[in-house]
Amino acid sequence: MIGLGLIGGSLLRALSDGGRSAFGYNRSAQTVADATAAGYRASDDLVATLRQAASDDAMIVLATPVTVIDDLLKSIAEYAPNCLLTDVISVKQPVAQAVARLAPGMRYVGGHPMAGTSQSGWAATDPQLFTDAMWMVTTEDHTRPDDWLAVASMARAVDAYVVPAAPDAHDRAVAAISHLPHLTAATTAAVGAGESGLALRLAAGSFRDGTRVAGTAPALQRAMLEANGIALLNVLSEAIDRLIAARDELRDNGTVEILVDDGHRARNAYEAVTGATPAPITGVVVGEHGWAHELRRQAHQARVWIG
Amino acid sequence: MIGLGLIGGSLLRALSDGGRSAFGYNRSAQTVADATAAGYRASDDLVATLRQAASDDAMIVLATPVTVIDDLLKSIAEYAPNCLLTDVISVKQPVAQAVARLAPGMRYVGGHPMAGTSQSGWAATDPQLFTDAMWMVTTEDHTRPDDWLAVASMARAVDAYVVPAAPDAHDRAVAAISHLPHLTAATTAAVGAGESGLALRLAAGSFRDGTRVAGTAPALQRAMLEANGIALLNVLSEAIDRLIAARDELRDNGTVEILVDDGHRARNAYEAVTGATPAPITGVVVGEHGWAHELRRQAHQARVWIG
Repeated sequence: MIGLGLIGGSLLRALSDGGRSAFGYNRSAQTVADATAAGYRASDDLVATLRQAASDDAMIVLATPVTVIDDLLKSIAEYAPNCLLTDVISVKQPVAQAVARLAPGMRYVGGHPMAGTSQSGWAATDPQLFTDAMWMVTTEDHTRPDDWLAVASMARAVDAYVVPAAPDAHDRAVAAISHLPHLTAATTAAVGAGESGLALRLAAGSFRDGTRVAGTAPALQRAMLEANGIALLNVLSEAIDRLIAARDELRDNGTVEILVDDGHRARNAYEAVTGATPAPITGVVVGEHGWAHELRRQAHQARVWIG
Repeated sequence: MIGLGLIGGSLLRALSDGGRSAFGYNRSAQTVADATAAGYRASDDLVATLRQAASDDAMIVLATPVTVIDDLLKSIAEYAPNCLLTDVISVKQPVAQAVARLAPGMRYVGGHPMAGTSQSGWAATDPQLFTDAMWMVTTEDHTRPDDWLAVASMARAVDAYVVPAAPDAHDRAVAAISHLPHLTAATTAAVGAGESGLALRLAAGSFRDGTRVAGTAPALQRAMLEANGIALLNVLSEAIDRLIAARDELRDNGTVEILVDDGHRARNAYEAVTGATPAPITGVVVGEHGWAHELRRQAHQARVWIG
């Protein structure tokens, strides 16, 4: 585990608690001390950690903000070039490009667990963080089946469901359902707080829930959103268009019917998808002809891989 | 209680459970049967209910959508003209205007409990709904102290805090912190659901929380938002301006720094106001010279009246 923040630290704990051999690196000596005191294997020596990974033929999980991966990838390629590499970063095309540029010989299968809170750092880690969460695993036509299965199996080992996707489809999807919500939450919060102390005093459930992710550390939000800038621009423009149409409808006709109805239908669609146990992908053997395409096709129907 | 939906029904239950004499009207015989079966006094006969209120010198609480109050106000003015009237409707200037037009002789002090869920109807009622909630009570220079105290005391009887405000200040505040969040939630939901089944499959906490209120019944959302159209137009325009500025900043400079930072500061301000026990309004005796002005002034500093 390279990085022991909320995601990396929780993954180290979940895997270790489940009896898997796992160890982690973090640049902060304090975090390493906290993890070690809690009974986990951690080090602030990157080279020693990577040499251990190479010696164990371990899978390396890159679990840092996307903004700091370049130097780490160079070190990984230098000290553990034969290890399988995955990551838990919220955007996939930029990471894949960085791997191709800085660690071109390595086997890499991207990952992204859809789990998080507005908290960050080791203190916020939780070995149950991934239970029933969706874990996107990059699934391309040229992905090696054994590598894919290794990454998918790690996700399953911490009780997550595996969602196969192409990197570009993943980045568009998370722009819509994860990154845009940060900007609408920030907007809602800023407009509300700008009104008066009375307004914040009266703020209740709709404001509390609608602005929650605005409380995430700004540097983490920016790293996540700005790395997915092009996909985010598209969905942000669509959001603006919808709000302008609603403003015009309200001003000219006194109604917000179209936006409220569209939003209600959309929320119902979301609840239908997420309210029940996910339907499993069926009839695919990983490695057989066309397996990656078929996994992606069924994932687009909201199905998950459970092995 | 005129209307036994989420708010009116919860209030009937909370007051009755607390040993107060309370009874309610609802036009739906099924709701009345449900309330009666649960041990509460309810009737689907409006005239009989109002005559009982007049006979008991009861306080009348109007707890229906704003869209249906005109006919109810005419009946109230006809059958119980000497009762004190309040309401729990989410917008105050339009209700005050309707009262002035349709029940001009009545004593009226507006109210608005900031409590609710995306559920509605008697089945969703909860006698604890108002515990620690903010209950705005209309506080104008001409408000009669005894009437104000009667309404504020009812809110305190169900464990809510009282927030004094002028009707126009209330309507601006709730546009920002209650009504705008419905439109940003609807937008976030609609853009996310429009992307793909994959997107809804990957949707996690930020989408779930950021779109929750979009699940409220559309008719209830529209009644609430459209009744506060002018104030809502103002904050909606501000939200659009902020999102356009963020889009331009992202497109031209690759960053979302300004909006993310503003949103984070705003969320922190909200948490500072709501995270602790509310500071009480002090040094005001209701009815003394300038009492209403002083209550409003302290409420603008996020203080609450606790009696």
